[in-house]
Amino acid sequence: MIEEKENIQFELTDELIDKVERLVELKNDKELKLLLNEFHYADVAEILDELSLEDSVYLIKLLDSETTSDILTELDEDTREKVLEKLSAKEIAEEVEELDTDDAADIIAELPEKRQAEVISQIEDEEHREEITELLTYEDDSAGGLMAKELVKVYETWTVAGCLRRIRGQAKEVTRVHSIYVVNKEEKLIGRLSLKDLIVAKSEQKIADIAKDNVDYVHVNDDVEDVAKVMSKYDLEAIPVVDDEQTLLGRITIDDIVDVLKEEAEKDYQLAAGITQDVEADDTVWELTKARLPWLVLGLFGGLGSVFIMKGYEDIMATVPSLFFYTPLIAAMAGNVGVQSSAIIVQGLANDNVKGSIFNRLVKEVGLSLINGFALAILVILFGFAINQNATESLAIAVSMMSVIIVAALVGTFVPIILDKRGIDPAIATGPFITTSNDILGIYLFFVLSGLIIGF
Amino acid sequence: MIEEKENIQFELTDELIDKVERLVELKNDKELKLLLNEFHYADVAEILDELSLEDSVYLIKLLDSETTSDILTELDEDTREKVLEKLSAKEIAEEVEELDTDDAADIIAELPEKRQAEVISQIEDEEHREEITELLTYEDDSAGGLMAKELVKVYETWTVAGCLRRIRGQAKEVTRVHSIYVVNKEEKLIGRLSLKDLIVAKSEQKIADIAKDNVDYVHVNDDVEDVAKVMSKYDLEAIPVVDDEQTLLGRITIDDIVDVLKEEAEKDYQLAAGITQDVEADDTVWELTKARLPWLVLGLFGGLGSVFIMKGYEDIMATVPSLFFYTPLIAAMAGNVGVQSSAIIVQGLANDNVKGSIFNRLVKEVGLSLINGFALAILVILFGFAINQNATESLAIAVSMMSVIIVAALVGTFVPIILDKRGIDPAIATGPFITTSNDILGIYLFFVLSGLIIGF
Repeated sequence: MIEEKENIQFELTDELIDKVERLVELKNDKELKLLLNEFHYADVAEILDELSLEDSVYLIKLLDSETTSDILTELDEDTREKVLEKLSAKEIAEEVEELDTDDAADIIAELPEKRQAEVISQIEDEEHREEITELLTYEDDSAGGLMAKELVKVYETWTVAGCLRRIRGQAKEVTRVHSIYVVNKEEKLIGRLSLKDLIVAKSEQKIADIAKDNVDYVHVNDDVEDVAKVMSKYDLEAIPVVDDEQTLLGRITIDDIVDVLKEEAEKDYQLAAGITQDVEADDTVWELTKARLPWLVLGLFGGLGSVFIMKGYEDIMATVPSLFFYTPLIAAMAGNVGVQSSAIIVQGLANDNVKGSIFNRLVKEVGLSLINGFALAILVILFGFAINQNATESLAIAVSMMSVIIVAALVGTFVPIILDKRGIDPAIATGPFITTSNDILGIYLFFVLSGLIIGF
Repeated sequence: MIEEKENIQFELTDELIDKVERLVELKNDKELKLLLNEFHYADVAEILDELSLEDSVYLIKLLDSETTSDILTELDEDTREKVLEKLSAKEIAEEVEELDTDDAADIIAELPEKRQAEVISQIEDEEHREEITELLTYEDDSAGGLMAKELVKVYETWTVAGCLRRIRGQAKEVTRVHSIYVVNKEEKLIGRLSLKDLIVAKSEQKIADIAKDNVDYVHVNDDVEDVAKVMSKYDLEAIPVVDDEQTLLGRITIDDIVDVLKEEAEKDYQLAAGITQDVEADDTVWELTKARLPWLVLGLFGGLGSVFIMKGYEDIMATVPSLFFYTPLIAAMAGNVGVQSSAIIVQGLANDNVKGSIFNRLVKEVGLSLINGFALAILVILFGFAINQNATESLAIAVSMMSVIIVAALVGTFVPIILDKRGIDPAIATGPFITTSNDILGIYLFFVLSGLIIGF
């Protein structure tokens, strides 16, 4: 059944795109269907992301809604938005009917508000419509916003045989059965079962007897990042979601968590690199500018601040010119040390392993900076020797640099901790923000301390 | 069965640690078992990470090996190494017997080579021993290094009823049944089934008739990052691993992929922040220094390079001093722009969405930098007005800065692309590496171009 393949990875080649474009132009629907049905919907989505909007819409209308609904969920957000604009509310409703409630709600949530109501009213299956409407009421970044209503639920009073019979019905609607949730007659979550437990059990046993009562769950208003932490810590593949009364509302599966983790990592990475929005290399120049320029302006103001500080020391240019040569070095050290410290703390906060007292952390950061700073100071003094620099000046530069390194490390460590304590995402304190403030602070300190040592 | 809880998250409090320490001191084994058996093994591991080595070893020896084996897999690598040193080869073998082959092999792989052989020889179950020995032969970052031998395998000739009967046996050894893999009599992977398919099917049907033949798989030598990409793209929860002959060797589950993704994200983040090793906020000062100092030394050499360049322009300090005030700004702009560009490209390369020709990307980066550079140049000129700076100087500074921004963006974009083409991880070209080279290049360009405009 399986042919020999070099690699399972689908490759998006220019030839393939050309072929699809040609077939669309020729309106060769039969060949297109044959070709595209060979691929996984995630691969078809990659093809569509590369086509013109007209061609993409043509293909979405051509293929079965069972496939196209899945393709829609996998498209780039920008492409999807444009494709959906070209579909009628009725057409979108048909796509949405094919999807699990979580994916359906995600797609509808992206539509303009007026269209949302239109699409929802066109969904024929009443249960599906109500469930999607419910999901749309939860916050995007809450467990409720991530969960699906599809799950397999059994009552504690059922027998294994009766359970298997009924599950055959429910399971057809659920793509993957991770866990079977056991509820009491008030629909409250009281335990769980795996399909395996059910298969291994004797058919006359009662569910209440074979169910495991230590079921993990999350609250519908829990933050998705906390849900991700719990699921990855306990290696869970699905987790039920309950409300204040412990009523079973839905379940979250690990594939959604994988997406959350990836987005989270990309966001933190971009913040650290000074990019304010979720952009990709292939976005338009305008989108990239919007994401990048604000941080550059911040950096510019920082640099202009340094100009101001240095202008104040213009008088000493004639006597100790070398100080001015070292300012980029000082700024770089302050920036690098600050970024390192903040990155370690931000990761630690994200993984909940920043423990111990603030005082201990202070002592540790100062100790660490003293070691690093001392090693670097020796190099600076050796360099001073090599270029025949005045010894007092070299010493002044080295000692001031050490102080700058200590202060930069403290700023990099404690700004994220303070932000985190105030409930602000500490990740914003990495990258340009910390670099810029450390640049100014560093250059100011550098001149003040050098002045004290050299005497100006 | 479920008590009302505020939150499912376990909280590691100082009181809890104190309580455990007190109980260990009193050697109150009964109370300790009662207390710790209440918690998930991942939570117990967090407690052990906080205890002294003696206390941790005491608890590992006290609790059942069924629990402690799982606890061992969840400990911090450092703690685990130390705890394992205190256990005999026989004791480690007993722990390893309880684990799935992938976790067992991971733990053994961390031991010194001589101990590895001792532990393996002490594993009583012959099949388990052979499987672990096989897994140890694969590269750490290959599919083989990540897979487990535990899986549910059926032959295409079996019936559904026969299959269910035999699965009851196999499934007891497998923690979670994601997919049932169908093989032919030569043990070659030819299809898959879900437990659901099996339950929904009629008992007299043949496996070959109900199996799905479009089974995704990876090769045993595939890179784990590629496996992660495939599994997350296609939303797979498990994937079978085969060799060159398509023989079914093992399977990889999504929880291992979640760990791979998290490690990958942390590594990239740390590289971008200038941290060379996997360190945590709570590591020792010495470990943190080893991870941080090399990048700082690199940055220092960059800074000293700038000193050298600026020294070459010492003569013009008397005539155009303001140029020297702007050097930290120029370095900051060159660094920030370079980091932004490299971050976008590195993420794009990781997600396989850097497409199109090199020439188009060049045009785009230049265009983008022109827009950003122009906006920033205007701010610089306005600032020059505000501080009554010579207009020619302001213009020279603004124009040189624009050029520096363009060059920095090109370096940030193309260095990662070139590294990637040569098979080197482009992530090393983010952070300090790109910042430092752009700092030197930027300051050099700044003086050369300003010289051309002002005329020195």
